[in-house]
Amino acid sequence: MTHPLFDKHRTTLDGALNAIRTRGYWSAYPEMPSPKTYGETAQADGKAAFDACLGREFALDQPGRRGTVASESSPYGIPLHVAYPTCDPQALVDAGLKAMPGWQAIGADGRAGVCLEILDRLNKRSFEIATAVMMTTGQGWMMAFQAGGPHAQDRGLEAVAHAYKEQAEVPAEAVWEKPQGKNPPLVMKKHFEVVGRGVALVIGCGTFPTWNTYPGLFAALATGNAVIVKPHHNAILPAAISVRIAREVLAENGLDANLVTLFATDVPAETQALAKHPAVASIDFTGGNAFGDWLYENCRGKQVYAELAGVNNIVIDGTDNYKGMLRNLAFTLSLYAGQMCTTTQAIFVPAGGIDTPDGKVPFDQVAADLGAAIDKFLADPAVATAVLGAIQSGDTLARIETAAAGKWGEVVLASKKIDHPEFPAAEVRTPVLLKCAAADEAAWMEERFGPVAFVVEVADTAAAIALSERVVRERGALTVGLYTTQPAVVDAMTAATWRSKVALSINLTGGVFVNQSAAYSDYHGTGGNPAANASYADAAFVANRFRVVQRRYHV
Amino acid sequence: MTHPLFDKHRTTLDGALNAIRTRGYWSAYPEMPSPKTYGETAQADGKAAFDACLGREFALDQPGRRGTVASESSPYGIPLHVAYPTCDPQALVDAGLKAMPGWQAIGADGRAGVCLEILDRLNKRSFEIATAVMMTTGQGWMMAFQAGGPHAQDRGLEAVAHAYKEQAEVPAEAVWEKPQGKNPPLVMKKHFEVVGRGVALVIGCGTFPTWNTYPGLFAALATGNAVIVKPHHNAILPAAISVRIAREVLAENGLDANLVTLFATDVPAETQALAKHPAVASIDFTGGNAFGDWLYENCRGKQVYAELAGVNNIVIDGTDNYKGMLRNLAFTLSLYAGQMCTTTQAIFVPAGGIDTPDGKVPFDQVAADLGAAIDKFLADPAVATAVLGAIQSGDTLARIETAAAGKWGEVVLASKKIDHPEFPAAEVRTPVLLKCAAADEAAWMEERFGPVAFVVEVADTAAAIALSERVVRERGALTVGLYTTQPAVVDAMTAATWRSKVALSINLTGGVFVNQSAAYSDYHGTGGNPAANASYADAAFVANRFRVVQRRYHV
Repeated sequence: MTHPLFDKHRTTLDGALNAIRTRGYWSAYPEMPSPKTYGETAQADGKAAFDACLGREFALDQPGRRGTVASESSPYGIPLHVAYPTCDPQALVDAGLKAMPGWQAIGADGRAGVCLEILDRLNKRSFEIATAVMMTTGQGWMMAFQAGGPHAQDRGLEAVAHAYKEQAEVPAEAVWEKPQGKNPPLVMKKHFEVVGRGVALVIGCGTFPTWNTYPGLFAALATGNAVIVKPHHNAILPAAISVRIAREVLAENGLDANLVTLFATDVPAETQALAKHPAVASIDFTGGNAFGDWLYENCRGKQVYAELAGVNNIVIDGTDNYKGMLRNLAFTLSLYAGQMCTTTQAIFVPAGGIDTPDGKVPFDQVAADLGAAIDKFLADPAVATAVLGAIQSGDTLARIETAAAGKWGEVVLASKKIDHPEFPAAEVRTPVLLKCAAADEAAWMEERFGPVAFVVEVADTAAAIALSERVVRERGALTVGLYTTQPAVVDAMTAATWRSKVALSINLTGGVFVNQSAAYSDYHGTGGNPAANASYADAAFVANRFRVVQRRYHV
Repeated sequence: MTHPLFDKHRTTLDGALNAIRTRGYWSAYPEMPSPKTYGETAQADGKAAFDACLGREFALDQPGRRGTVASESSPYGIPLHVAYPTCDPQALVDAGLKAMPGWQAIGADGRAGVCLEILDRLNKRSFEIATAVMMTTGQGWMMAFQAGGPHAQDRGLEAVAHAYKEQAEVPAEAVWEKPQGKNPPLVMKKHFEVVGRGVALVIGCGTFPTWNTYPGLFAALATGNAVIVKPHHNAILPAAISVRIAREVLAENGLDANLVTLFATDVPAETQALAKHPAVASIDFTGGNAFGDWLYENCRGKQVYAELAGVNNIVIDGTDNYKGMLRNLAFTLSLYAGQMCTTTQAIFVPAGGIDTPDGKVPFDQVAADLGAAIDKFLADPAVATAVLGAIQSGDTLARIETAAAGKWGEVVLASKKIDHPEFPAAEVRTPVLLKCAAADEAAWMEERFGPVAFVVEVADTAAAIALSERVVRERGALTVGLYTTQPAVVDAMTAATWRSKVALSINLTGGVFVNQSAAYSDYHGTGGNPAANASYADAAFVANRFRVVQRRYHV
């Protein structure tokens, strides 16, 4: 007998299973914030639910409560003052371990069903969560809704589908009958139990508190583990709402709510201590290299899935649609003011210029044209504020200042501060575009997170491809791009990306951008270069999160 | 068009794929060394081929040759004097990297086909390889044939099947078509390339030079990596023959033979340097904790699959077949003189005795009866030498002496030296059985590799189960056993093994032994306790050995 929630969501799960196998377009959760889909009052309800969170303690009935933390400040400059309960990490670990046997007992089917119910509930609360994402991260509304809501939910479902698939491959039992010639066969009954590895710690980032959290959360949960979610101290609310919804679904279904808990803290040492806790078996982390390297160094024997810094880059050899290319790049660099782990930082352009239908466009002209394209795209303040969002951290503001000072290269396009009509205190900035020589590696060959991009002069296309490969190998990247009209150049770049192990987008001039990654179809990260040691999502992302424990006896 | 070798071996691969899904009995390679199966002259041919290796240089045309090493000495006391070419590790790494693109290009189908051809060729050479295993490890002939030949080949095929299955789940390409309302859809063509992670290093052990080497070798090879095999310095020949066969098959099929190379050395620092080489992406290791811990500590960022020490144990609560139980345990403890990573070391017996059809048998009586059963089983020298084989290392001989001196507990049954009629210099020893209190943890709660077993007095069955769980958690184990007639005891022990993550055998009194593990059906190791961080074989054993690199463009 399968779990009722498995039956309820079977069609959705089958859709996801088919999608990860065929990798065409598919989505379980509508990405348009349409009243027709989400209900006429959904937007108002979501906004009201968000508002109701502000200025008070966030209700979350967890064990080991010891006080509250209220560490968020909105990039849009609005007061938040949400106080989250802080809990003794040992109490969360103990409660998680205590909850695991019941979670194991309902099996992979039951776990998948419960996870899909949680995702369905998250989807219905997309407006509330999106508002929380927007106000804590500085994302524009549409991105906050899509990436923070349905796209994040799709990434969660994708992880559940992979987790379910790998567990479903393990038969619950078998009869093993070995012939013994003329003697009776040896016969054994064997049972195979899927067992979670222990408590999973999922550490979120400040820019995508749901999109980068749901894959680890749902991969670990669906494979039988208890999960402690440790959000970024400035983006707790989206995670807190998500955790509360998960706990509600668990409790409503007779399961221990402590399978999913929130560890809110703004003390890094507390997170480090929890990461080193012997009962913590896996850690999912999205964020900077300093903490990532600390995890690699200090959490040996645990599974660490980390997405860290990188230097995403694009090689331009030529194009048959110069304006389309510039428009595409202008949007890529502007979206959320470059505060995406997939945004291009370095654009390699041959010293001799690039091929276009109108002939060679020289290096300096390409840089200037790209600057002009960005400027033009962001000329309308309504477009600019919607696309750029607000700057999430003071560190990013400081990087914009450093770039503006010409320290990293010649300024092609200066960053501008834009007034946000609705949020006067919002820190809205346009991208700064620099140009420099390939040899200025100290400037451009380090992640400059935020709206700072470099047009880098390289000897020729071959040198650009070689440089791209080296950057990916040494510094990591989640995305690289290529513009060319030459099949041989495509082949050379393709081979380079096989060696450096990075996803390649070729000749994007329309409505798809290099920094976009679609669940079920695009592997986000390959796990094969320093930017990430795992991918959203594949078998490797889930297969090591559970163990198979067998027993056998004669029958 | 599929690869001809994929077509040739398709039936075998399908059999293996079905077997790992259903986990019933299956085998691709006949385990009986029968002339009917392997040919009338197979045994003589194998012996002759082995003899032809002795006293000369082993022909292996590898790059970077710099000299030879001849480090093996036979536990059977026969002269070996095989000189293996030693090669510059950098040359092996470079050659492996150079060979990988061609290996990538033939795809998962082609790689599976070539791996199956290698396994088929290994199978046909089973007598030669078995003789090499026997003479380098001290295994008895039948074990050397079965575990060193067909069973090892089955474990290799099992790894290929898992590797193929996970790669086959990745579509080569997809069309992604995203609706855009009334506008034309966004359409992209996407390609997904399976890429090996880099050079794989597979480090073998001295006791099972093929059984513990083939899983890592074939898992890494089938997933697109070049493999360097570093055999134990005293069991090089079985690996060298295997590597040579693999190289022959590769070359015959127009592939670069340097995809599989042998790194023969008796200098641990050389192995360590190679393990730390940046191009080495994964390491498979079977052996002691000292080197295993060094790998965990020093090879961060690489995938390490390690099988280390453990304290396998059995809980005896009661039995309805006392004699059958004693016979089964006597064989378990005698087989290859306990030099198996799966052999029981500690047998937990309640102080109040165990339940049998004839009433309670007291603790001391159980120990004495087990000693007598071992003595009786090994009374016939022909049986004894066939089952025990010879002691593989001086360290193991020293452990027998320490045990005999009563340092670790009271001697219930002393170890005896047995003369081998065929090999007068062979070090053949019977097991030493000790008894001690549970509190004597310093004696029994550490791996005593070889024919040293402890009957450990515990308060009662509940204490025995709790102690078994703790030992597995703290010291690791590949196997635990249970004897009981009480369903509640089975349930309690089952739950304990779920927590400690170890395979359980219940009430073995016939022809299956706790230290036996059948490919395709029994998971060897769970990867969830300190004895091993991976299992032969499951999805987790293969899924992280390759990466998926995608490219996408509009169509």
